[in-house]
Amino acid sequence: MTDQRVFMFSEGNASMRELLGGKGADLAEMTRAGLPVPYGFTITTASCRDYYTHLGHIPLSLIEEIEAALVSLEQKTGKTFGNSANPLFVAVRSGAVTSMPGMMDTILNLGMNDETSEGLAAMTGNRKYALECYARFIQMYGHVVMGIENNAFSKLLRQLNTAQGTEHIGQLEQADLAELIDKYKSLIHQRTKKPIPQNVREQLIDAVRAIFRSWSNPRAKVYRKVHKIPEDQGTAVSVQEMVFGNLDEFSGTGVLFTRNPSTGVHEILGEYLPSAQGEEVVMGIRTPFGISYLAQTMPAVYEELHEAASRLEAWYGDIQDIEFTIEQGKLYILQTRGARRTAQAAMKAAVDYAKEGIITKEEALLRIEPEHLNQLLHQSIEAQDADKVVATGLPASPGAVSGALVFDSETAEAWTSVGKRVILVRRETTPQDIHGVIAAEGLLTLRGGMTSHAAVVARGMGTPCVCGCEEMELREDVKELVCGEYTFLEGDLISLDGATGQVYAGEIKLKDPEISEELSLVLSWADEIKHMKVYANIDQPGDVKYARKWGAEGIGLCRTEHMFLSPSRLPLIQRVIVAGNAQERQEALYRLLPIQQSDFEQIFTEMDGLPVTIRLLDPPLHEFLPKLEVLEGRKEHLRMITMDGDTEELDKVERVISKVQELRETNPMLGWRGARLGIVFPEIYDMQIEAIFRAAANCIDRGISVVPEIMIPLVGHANELSTLRRLVDEVAEQVLRENLRHCPYRVGTMIEVPRAALTAAEIAKHADFFSFGTNDLTQMTLGYSRDDAERRFLSQYLEQKIVEANPFEVLDEEGVGELMKLALNRGRSWKPQLVAGLCGEHGGDRDSIRFCHQIGLDYVSCSPYRVPFARIAAAQAEIRERNVSVPEDCSEVTSTA
Amino acid sequence: MTDQRVFMFSEGNASMRELLGGKGADLAEMTRAGLPVPYGFTITTASCRDYYTHLGHIPLSLIEEIEAALVSLEQKTGKTFGNSANPLFVAVRSGAVTSMPGMMDTILNLGMNDETSEGLAAMTGNRKYALECYARFIQMYGHVVMGIENNAFSKLLRQLNTAQGTEHIGQLEQADLAELIDKYKSLIHQRTKKPIPQNVREQLIDAVRAIFRSWSNPRAKVYRKVHKIPEDQGTAVSVQEMVFGNLDEFSGTGVLFTRNPSTGVHEILGEYLPSAQGEEVVMGIRTPFGISYLAQTMPAVYEELHEAASRLEAWYGDIQDIEFTIEQGKLYILQTRGARRTAQAAMKAAVDYAKEGIITKEEALLRIEPEHLNQLLHQSIEAQDADKVVATGLPASPGAVSGALVFDSETAEAWTSVGKRVILVRRETTPQDIHGVIAAEGLLTLRGGMTSHAAVVARGMGTPCVCGCEEMELREDVKELVCGEYTFLEGDLISLDGATGQVYAGEIKLKDPEISEELSLVLSWADEIKHMKVYANIDQPGDVKYARKWGAEGIGLCRTEHMFLSPSRLPLIQRVIVAGNAQERQEALYRLLPIQQSDFEQIFTEMDGLPVTIRLLDPPLHEFLPKLEVLEGRKEHLRMITMDGDTEELDKVERVISKVQELRETNPMLGWRGARLGIVFPEIYDMQIEAIFRAAANCIDRGISVVPEIMIPLVGHANELSTLRRLVDEVAEQVLRENLRHCPYRVGTMIEVPRAALTAAEIAKHADFFSFGTNDLTQMTLGYSRDDAERRFLSQYLEQKIVEANPFEVLDEEGVGELMKLALNRGRSWKPQLVAGLCGEHGGDRDSIRFCHQIGLDYVSCSPYRVPFARIAAAQAEIRERNVSVPEDCSEVTSTA
Repeated sequence: MTDQRVFMFSEGNASMRELLGGKGADLAEMTRAGLPVPYGFTITTASCRDYYTHLGHIPLSLIEEIEAALVSLEQKTGKTFGNSANPLFVAVRSGAVTSMPGMMDTILNLGMNDETSEGLAAMTGNRKYALECYARFIQMYGHVVMGIENNAFSKLLRQLNTAQGTEHIGQLEQADLAELIDKYKSLIHQRTKKPIPQNVREQLIDAVRAIFRSWSNPRAKVYRKVHKIPEDQGTAVSVQEMVFGNLDEFSGTGVLFTRNPSTGVHEILGEYLPSAQGEEVVMGIRTPFGISYLAQTMPAVYEELHEAASRLEAWYGDIQDIEFTIEQGKLYILQTRGARRTAQAAMKAAVDYAKEGIITKEEALLRIEPEHLNQLLHQSIEAQDADKVVATGLPASPGAVSGALVFDSETAEAWTSVGKRVILVRRETTPQDIHGVIAAEGLLTLRGGMTSHAAVVARGMGTPCVCGCEEMELREDVKELVCGEYTFLEGDLISLDGATGQVYAGEIKLKDPEISEELSLVLSWADEIKHMKVYANIDQPGDVKYARKWGAEGIGLCRTEHMFLSPSRLPLIQRVIVAGNAQERQEALYRLLPIQQSDFEQIFTEMDGLPVTIRLLDPPLHEFLPKLEVLEGRKEHLRMITMDGDTEELDKVERVISKVQELRETNPMLGWRGARLGIVFPEIYDMQIEAIFRAAANCIDRGISVVPEIMIPLVGHANELSTLRRLVDEVAEQVLRENLRHCPYRVGTMIEVPRAALTAAEIAKHADFFSFGTNDLTQMTLGYSRDDAERRFLSQYLEQKIVEANPFEVLDEEGVGELMKLALNRGRSWKPQLVAGLCGEHGGDRDSIRFCHQIGLDYVSCSPYRVPFARIAAAQAEIRERNVSVPEDCSEVTSTA
Repeated sequence: MTDQRVFMFSEGNASMRELLGGKGADLAEMTRAGLPVPYGFTITTASCRDYYTHLGHIPLSLIEEIEAALVSLEQKTGKTFGNSANPLFVAVRSGAVTSMPGMMDTILNLGMNDETSEGLAAMTGNRKYALECYARFIQMYGHVVMGIENNAFSKLLRQLNTAQGTEHIGQLEQADLAELIDKYKSLIHQRTKKPIPQNVREQLIDAVRAIFRSWSNPRAKVYRKVHKIPEDQGTAVSVQEMVFGNLDEFSGTGVLFTRNPSTGVHEILGEYLPSAQGEEVVMGIRTPFGISYLAQTMPAVYEELHEAASRLEAWYGDIQDIEFTIEQGKLYILQTRGARRTAQAAMKAAVDYAKEGIITKEEALLRIEPEHLNQLLHQSIEAQDADKVVATGLPASPGAVSGALVFDSETAEAWTSVGKRVILVRRETTPQDIHGVIAAEGLLTLRGGMTSHAAVVARGMGTPCVCGCEEMELREDVKELVCGEYTFLEGDLISLDGATGQVYAGEIKLKDPEISEELSLVLSWADEIKHMKVYANIDQPGDVKYARKWGAEGIGLCRTEHMFLSPSRLPLIQRVIVAGNAQERQEALYRLLPIQQSDFEQIFTEMDGLPVTIRLLDPPLHEFLPKLEVLEGRKEHLRMITMDGDTEELDKVERVISKVQELRETNPMLGWRGARLGIVFPEIYDMQIEAIFRAAANCIDRGISVVPEIMIPLVGHANELSTLRRLVDEVAEQVLRENLRHCPYRVGTMIEVPRAALTAAEIAKHADFFSFGTNDLTQMTLGYSRDDAERRFLSQYLEQKIVEANPFEVLDEEGVGELMKLALNRGRSWKPQLVAGLCGEHGGDRDSIRFCHQIGLDYVSCSPYRVPFARIAAAQAEIRERNVSVPEDCSEVTSTA
């Protein structure tokens, strides 16, 4: 690395972002491109890091480099720093590698003192303006460098305004301003026992130090934490000649967007204020004109500005937010940065740039971020109304919704059936709540993290959900939800924003998602480029239409257990579980058979010709039975009302209780489920397989193309798979023979137990495909219980950087990913053409999708609502692989602050 | 493989065990060695396998080979099969590769029919004897070949005895015997509609078929399952000339042991019955003489027998159980097999053989089996008394014990403190019961398998334990244990045999373990030979003396949690957990500090100079708190007695309740414990580390050599270890500096989370040693909950051969072992000298120890009581590695049936 610590703008370029910060690199690049940028220089991020490692000491060598740069700046501008005859003033600004808008400090008009302020007065012929600038400089410097709170200055200004009967600084007379300057100086002296430095070089060095210091102010730290910006990057400092937009009528200042940041439409939007400095636009003292005013008053300058804007936009390939100043008819570009734009604007602009040839389709695709699609594909809140926010939980499933509050699944279902929109609140949800979750428009839980049952199910169904809202108190017995001063009763209207985690009292105005032309186009580009297939995970036949709507190329995981959980089916599966003998069990199973068969027929029909992967029953049986507390309550109730009369119902409840007790497990996660259930208790699998092939045979009759893929869950040993594969083959042969039909099918396994990955060569001998179940694989490989980890230690692990990301959201490549690579290598060593995919929650995460692409998976499968995003992420992975020189994340590159 | 299906004894040898079965190979070997074995031939195990694959059909080619062998046999014996003048009779016996004594069928005197029986009468001059033989042959053949139950024959014999006023067959007259033969024949005809074949060749082929068939009779199947003998080995069949020990006074029959099978003392023990056939000895009709009778009556024959016995013993290198017959002064050895001997005898004999030069020390070591040491090192029941057995559970921890029954840990402790011996019965145990478990002499649980908490703790402490005794009913509320007709109350005497799982009513006579001279010698040989070190796992300072007594070379795992569980300490750790603020917590911790310190001082002192590996607190905090039900009960009780007076105690209980609820986890196995606790809640680790180094400093003062090894549990990520290692280093430095002492120490980690194994290279950077915690590693790699798996599906998996062994008893080499190898390779790739060991339950299992040796572990650590066994197993692993030609298991090789 170079030892040079200070670079003139003309010495740098866009590739020096790490060293010069985003702003410094941009200013250098613009200078190189011949754009009219005020002269200046940048002090590197390395200097800032040195500052911290040297405990706040700025070395003499750096001061010497700054001095040299100042001399060079004086030569270029023809002005002299600290000279009252022809004073040079500078803006000193922070500029990190990654944009952190407004988080760090800035000082304008630096170089002002008692003498140079009079020089400015003489130069502009406007002493009042010069004094006003001086007063503002003193406040800014006093605050940023000398550490006095802004409020102390404002108070003095307010007092003066009150005394003079004026409202703002612009209305004060010269004498008043002189008095204000004196009062400001006294305040500083009184607080710091030091005067404000009259030595402008001292001002500059202290300002640089203050900006270095502002890197670690509390709000900057919080911002970095939220935006996952490394703590050790440090900020650069740019020192730039001040230009004056208030010298005459041919001067002025303004901002513009190269395209509409809200819609993405190609039109220049902006504001212009003649005879004004930048702050005045911000302070709202005068109302600015639209940018067209400039076109009318100074068409040549407007033309130059327009051309500069186009060049900048083409250069960065994204909508720019440009600050400019005109000094006596000469245009200066002060700053350009990627505009903060809506998802829709980002999408439209990216597509348009690609059409205009400014960027390639591939670059356009790399622009699309997860949040963009989240915003585009869910209802959202039209206008944030902070007053109505009563609590904030975890943003578990995006989308906004208003509805009537209900406290249990039964009510949720009942009210929905009569056309009400409801929001279900639960301490936490269990699979038993599924009918309530299906019915509700929104879901709110007090416990559980981003990957809790409620969150996963809600994301799977695209239902907005706020989780882990721990500040609330739920009084289930009296159906009250208490949150601070608010108490909500059943039926009260509340609203959720699952994208932010905010909960609102009352109803709130929402807007619908629009599936724009641009999105369709981008998705079609993604499909052209991507190599991996994108499948959908579904729980119910009804989910298939969403899977197709969002472009899934198959079903990668059809969970069959949720099909048992509707109120009409649950009693049947419960009867299977508590059956006293084989005949009772068979009877109950044979009532379930046609129901499952009809589910599968619907799915096969809608997916005609596309693969459908059906996972046989996975969860432990106790998940289908009521909770023990509920049963005990029911038993108590029956005892009281039954007396010594009819005890049949009581016997039934007692039978269920004893079954629940029998099935109770210390660690259900590591328990009796999946293949283990299928082997000990083959009747259920038998029924499911029969239902699949009966459905397949019927569909074939109707001319539908069906290739069922039967997936065995929780396999850990090749013998489990070979045993259950035999069962599939036997039942399939029997059913197909009976129906005189031929149906090719595949049998594969989830790889979700570490042992399965380790023994993948053996397992591959019996498998047509592998599907990595990374939810469970993560739990077992890391030894984290998904239901508990976040609440217990994971949040602290994230905070302390023990782990970099929540492994249930972003695949743990080092651990779980290692196991996946190993399984893939071993499996394909035996069966080179083994099809392999992923069907965990990670199938909807960009980094995880990229990893899947890298290790050579054939597909990822995610919730239908994540399919569009996964299609884009798969294309991004492909593009990045083809061209490793494309930077990681374009959004970071194009935004500067 | 050869196509030859029938081998004359003279054609075979000892190496053909796979083909000829154990007995066939032994007979061949003895024949080759010139020992006086009656002539015969063996039909191979391959023929038996063919029989099964051909669905019970015996091919003509095999019949032809048997015919040819018969002709050869007739030539050698000079007798003719089926010829009444000079009849050849044969014994047809089963003989599997692995001995299955008594499980399959045998037919003696085959070749008898109406004519040859008269021939025998003429030859022996004893028609009564000939008819008796014939009757017995008919019964045997009728039962084994024709499938009629023995009882039907016995009934006929009883009727005849009753009618004649006699008691056994030997008392019947010739006419009665003729009548009996007729009745037997009628029975056969009546049942099978066929006569007993008079064609002796037909008899032979049918007998061979019946013996093949007997390979899969139910008791043989059960035996194979219990003894883990492969189902597909099949049995050989040997056909051997019958010799007659009843021809005259110079004839007779007997059995002998080459050494005392009970003590191992070098003396010939045996019995001899002149003028008798083998069965008569067994039937107990006549009382045999001691073997010395033979020495007196036929010294030359005795001398020949003695020499044959010595040769056989030297050949097999183990105590032989020899059957012989003398026919008219000529000695025949009918069979030799490894004697069923006691552990003590096996041990003494092995040592003596090694001393005598018959076998090497290495061979002697390979003889020692796990069960031997189990028998030698625990109290055992002097005489089995089946009548007193009231129930049988799982043999969870060996040793026998009698004591007074108690139902809770408090009583156990109270009664023990006044000198009573108690047996604690619990539905299942939890860490809360530890003081009861420590106090009790024996442990009985109704739930839980061989690896349940109770079983593991009991084995760790050497306390006899019977687990999972599900047939019992426990009425805790009234303190009654019901088992069938028995009801035991508190204080009733019962007895357990943890080696067999049997529970006895009342007291039973026990004998103490004797640590024989031979065992000491064998252990010293093992130590000379073995490469791996053997350490002990301990829970309490008191365990150290056992660790040293049994020869542990260090402490591989000192669990610190059990030190908190005694009644005087538990309240302190509970106070730490429920502390309302940091000060309360610190106070409680500082009361625990001197207690822990004193524990460690005791341990360091007793282990002077040997490594002591201390694991910081591992279990989840809720394990230290009472169960919720107990607390709710206490709260209810307090509410009733408190009224509206003093509520302090009630508040306290409520605080504990809310803490218990807060700490509750869905999957505690994957929960907040080990390093996760240490990171979120470092105060406890801090205190423990301080205690360790204070103890170390004090010991150093006293001239004791201390090298503490501090082990961090449940690490999954290198950052966890680096964070906690920093804590250890900081506290160590502080304490040692304060004490002005230098103390080298090591910091290492358990490898028990799959992710730790996968990322071992990273983790090794921060670790001085790895210790594989294979209990948890097995749970997570296989996804089996140790507390539930056996009860739920594992027993069925074992039965269905989905898995070969319980992975909690025998290390799963394919899965868990694979992960261990991977971790070792990756860890040592970074740090070639990384010390690695194992400290799970598997450290006491022979196969697992061997695996540890193979992959290059430096040590295994197991419960003190398993240390002697582990020392021998480690030596056995070394010997087997050096000489792969030594057969797997000598005990199998030397026993034939």
